Amino acid sequence: MTDLSFDPRDPVALTQALIRCPSVTPAEGGALTLLADVLQANGFATHLVPFSDEDTPDVLNLYARVGPPDRPALMFAGHTDVVPPGDEARWRHQPFSGDIVNGQLYGRGAVDMKGGVAASVAASLRHLDAHPEAPIAFLITGDEEGPAINGTVKLLDWAVAKGDRIGHCILGEPTNPEALGDMVKIGRRGSLSGIITVHGKQGHVAYPHLAMNPVPQMVRLLAALTQSELDQGSDHFDASNLEVVSVDVGNPAFNVIPADIRATFNIRFNDRWTRQSLEEWIRAKLDGAAGNEVAYDLAFERSASESFFTPPGAFVDAIVSSIEAETGRRPVLSTSGGTSDARFIKNVCPVVEFGLVGKTMHQIDERVDILDLESLTRIYQRILGQYFA
Amino acid sequence: MTDLSFDPRDPVALTQALIRCPSVTPAEGGALTLLADVLQANGFATHLVPFSDEDTPDVLNLYARVGPPDRPALMFAGHTDVVPPGDEARWRHQPFSGDIVNGQLYGRGAVDMKGGVAASVAASLRHLDAHPEAPIAFLITGDEEGPAINGTVKLLDWAVAKGDRIGHCILGEPTNPEALGDMVKIGRRGSLSGIITVHGKQGHVAYPHLAMNPVPQMVRLLAALTQSELDQGSDHFDASNLEVVSVDVGNPAFNVIPADIRATFNIRFNDRWTRQSLEEWIRAKLDGAAGNEVAYDLAFERSASESFFTPPGAFVDAIVSSIEAETGRRPVLSTSGGTSDARFIKNVCPVVEFGLVGKTMHQIDERVDILDLESLTRIYQRILGQYFA
Repeated sequence: MTDLSFDPRDPVALTQALIRCPSVTPAEGGALTLLADVLQANGFATHLVPFSDEDTPDVLNLYARVGPPDRPALMFAGHTDVVPPGDEARWRHQPFSGDIVNGQLYGRGAVDMKGGVAASVAASLRHLDAHPEAPIAFLITGDEEGPAINGTVKLLDWAVAKGDRIGHCILGEPTNPEALGDMVKIGRRGSLSGIITVHGKQGHVAYPHLAMNPVPQMVRLLAALTQSELDQGSDHFDASNLEVVSVDVGNPAFNVIPADIRATFNIRFNDRWTRQSLEEWIRAKLDGAAGNEVAYDLAFERSASESFFTPPGAFVDAIVSSIEAETGRRPVLSTSGGTSDARFIKNVCPVVEFGLVGKTMHQIDERVDILDLESLTRIYQRILGQYFA
Repeated sequence: MTDLSFDPRDPVALTQALIRCPSVTPAEGGALTLLADVLQANGFATHLVPFSDEDTPDVLNLYARVGPPDRPALMFAGHTDVVPPGDEARWRHQPFSGDIVNGQLYGRGAVDMKGGVAASVAASLRHLDAHPEAPIAFLITGDEEGPAINGTVKLLDWAVAKGDRIGHCILGEPTNPEALGDMVKIGRRGSLSGIITVHGKQGHVAYPHLAMNPVPQMVRLLAALTQSELDQGSDHFDASNLEVVSVDVGNPAFNVIPADIRATFNIRFNDRWTRQSLEEWIRAKLDGAAGNEVAYDLAFERSASESFFTPPGAFVDAIVSSIEAETGRRPVLSTSGGTSDARFIKNVCPVVEFGLVGKTMHQIDERVDILDLESLTRIYQRILGQYFA
């Protein structure tokens, strides 16, 4: 049991304590055990759950819940693992120091997302002080910045199998571009990656009739893919977008016709598509361009994710009004940006993302304004109040 | 002075002696000094000329001439350097042994082209026995299989500067696909290589508006290049042909829009084009496809070579009729295949290529039929006879 010299209802002190745990993925660094101790001391049933898989490091995760198991919980999701600090000499304040200077708390994970986790814990403990029966859960992974194999997906399965009821989820990733209250994420585009290979026949450039150059054939396939529009967006989403991210032959010789060419692509897609409908669209495009003349291989990466979307309604309204009451800002309901663990959580319950200001995430001198930590805590408190009202 | 235990009028013995010199480029291996000794002993003025250049090994070369300097010489050109033998254990007979088994003389360089050089020397000595005043020259390089920087080009300049008159040249490369007499090369296509680069702006695939993907732009440029016909051939040449030999980005990440893409191409072009007209054609094609939207860099490789063509006429007729008289075959007048040192020689005098059967060149167990060596010697003798008649 951690000897706590601070009140975990103070998000600044809790963020500092978490930053001092060097939890670069996949290291737990003491961060999850600290949280487990805090939550257990405040009435939560806590579970530190390790997961293993082929070719990936073992990762520890935390699931905690309080309140009657038959009442749907409001779940806070997040992660305590962080990306590496890079060159520590370039930090003004050491990345695992948690130093506070001029109202800024410095450290790797300050906004992504130990600060968000600390605010959700502090808010929950404050809410439980007045409403000890509130069903609240925490799903905290140590594998968000890593392969994401031994984290949220398995922990969700584990929690669902356990039988706990979960009503809605708030994922505390840093969603605000500039100031706290700017933006709530009610959806994210899905992501699908693939590899196209065209096999030709190697030969000498002086004897092209004895060889078959796969390059012009790939050019034809890529022209078809890159000149096609997927859609023009949907009510809440930007247009889906395909990028060819690499094309490679690797032939150093000017006098050799190469045997193979490979291209890789990634698509960020909105709620007009599923992974399956998109795979069918790609095959149809490539088949159309290939005709009977080009033989290609197409493989999709395992790491694809569907889009998620939580439509505006009572849950989103509770979040928006809490933000507005605390900050005076009416947040944009956005579906832009990269993927997040919400892509997994949406299979279990509606999920919305709201956290700190992301400006310094993954950068040298990542830091959070300590006033934002207190404001975010109060926003989460208001959401808990409205959710259980 | 080499102690010769054989008659250099015997092309089999001379080929054997040359094969026993391990002259893998850039090593001279004793081959050029052996030839110089043979020619000097038979009245030639011989010059062993070393050349040096930046970033390439020093190479020795041989120029030899006999007869009155004011009469145009018939010059035999060739090389004594050879490509490496590869795994010697896979050879039935050691690559530098010169073993004769079942009428086949084994060894690296047997057909490419120590055998051809030996036949031209043997033929010349036989001709000089009857016609001691015949002006005959030899231009033998040690850098044909290497960078070709310190070989034929510089030796030609050196010989021209010396003031010797050269009338015509026979290059003894292995020109026959299947049997001696199949094919004479009266021309070769030129070769031009280049590199196209498109610079974009790197970024995350989820934020394409903050990046600029250079891949679709390169696809546009390559589509324009590969869908265009250069020509449909000329009277004596196949159509010119462009091959994109590599396209490379080297981006391992599915979530990153790459900064740059590079493509390399090679063109084999016929006598409808010069290097300059071709460079202008490529720029026009790329500019047309690029419009104002794509910025690309184009660089041409230094190693380009013009085509060469020696039109049918008295010189070609002398060669064809000599071949027909000796073998009963009427050779095809071809301009196909890769480049050769004839691309340099054509600037000094008309040049035609005729040598041994190329089937085993550059392979394990390279070998020559000893009957072919004698036949080729007699063909060269007949050509000398007709040329000086």
